[in-house]
Amino acid sequence: MKQEILRHYNLLLGSKSPRRQELLKALGLHYSLVEIDVEEVYPSHLQGADIARYLCELKADAYNSEHMPADSILVTADTIVWLDGKYIGKPAGRAEAIEMLTQLSGKQHSVYSGICLKSSTRKVVFHSHTLVTFRELGLDEIEYYVSHHKPYDKAGSYGIQDWIGYIGVTGIEGCYYNVMGFPVQLFYEQLTRFIAGSNEE
Amino acid sequence: MKQEILRHYNLLLGSKSPRRQELLKALGLHYSLVEIDVEEVYPSHLQGADIARYLCELKADAYNSEHMPADSILVTADTIVWLDGKYIGKPAGRAEAIEMLTQLSGKQHSVYSGICLKSSTRKVVFHSHTLVTFRELGLDEIEYYVSHHKPYDKAGSYGIQDWIGYIGVTGIEGCYYNVMGFPVQLFYEQLTRFIAGSNEE
Repeated sequence: MKQEILRHYNLLLGSKSPRRQELLKALGLHYSLVEIDVEEVYPSHLQGADIARYLCELKADAYNSEHMPADSILVTADTIVWLDGKYIGKPAGRAEAIEMLTQLSGKQHSVYSGICLKSSTRKVVFHSHTLVTFRELGLDEIEYYVSHHKPYDKAGSYGIQDWIGYIGVTGIEGCYYNVMGFPVQLFYEQLTRFIAGSNEE
Repeated sequence: MKQEILRHYNLLLGSKSPRRQELLKALGLHYSLVEIDVEEVYPSHLQGADIARYLCELKADAYNSEHMPADSILVTADTIVWLDGKYIGKPAGRAEAIEMLTQLSGKQHSVYSGICLKSSTRKVVFHSHTLVTFRELGLDEIEYYVSHHKPYDKAGSYGIQDWIGYIGVTGIEGCYYNVMGFPVQLFYEQLTRFIAGSNEE
């Protein structure tokens, strides 16, 4: 079965996100971490999904995959929040985190994760889109969350799997794990096709 | 703030589900477990949400809340899967689990959780609805999942937070935690209103 075939491959995960590592583990796949250092800058004309797609590919291209073994696949990802036609990344600190959550309060926003799979000879990029709706959040709730959870490594300053997600998110449309930063179902499907060679660009 | 007020109450959870206990804990609320023994039978004319609402109220009414302290609130819940106008409960064993997942494969179904809050003097019932879409699942995937995860305590024979959810669920519409059996955001909102006395029937 697929599951067995996938286990023969070694995934190289170019991401520091503990959520992505957890989800890869939960799929039962082998992986190791690789360090990728690149400034996350994108052309200003890009919008929504294209930003996430661009940034994950930028990370993949910053990794020298020339001498990768045939059974290795590099996995890079980028997750962004998109609100009212505006990019929302990670907050620089407490004040910006509070400001971001205040902007998201009472509104629906989009979460896009771009994922790039790259071997020594091939590369594919795909993305997932989820709509997330927050009820009106109280400033006390926002401040409580930011103080206790310090969401500085998270796009949009929140984790849907954190307290603020439990009490504030009224519903989503799309993949839940995409909001956590890694759309596992789509990843699994695309990885299977990548190995079979059927999703080339 | 709300969070502080809620901590003064002691919730009595009438559910054996470890997922519900986890989610209550994650909200930072105090609770203790109470045993409720009742045969889960509902009138055959009920459909969808009304079945979950009926069953959680049945559980609540089976608990003697007459001498409950004023700071205690009984919480009961029932989660059902509803596919093509048909009730799907928990599987009796391996064969039924495989059959249920085969039915859910490649289709969209509804998950309804009914929740009942009850004090010595008041009672409210509410519910959450989430649409869940499975891609076509292979029989090998279904059998692998049932063998490794034994989802016999789960409505519809699956946990969205299990391997089958990762690889099989293409998307949802509504609350993710409702699919786990406990719609935390709605619960938190209704609990706050219950304590304030503003959601009486």
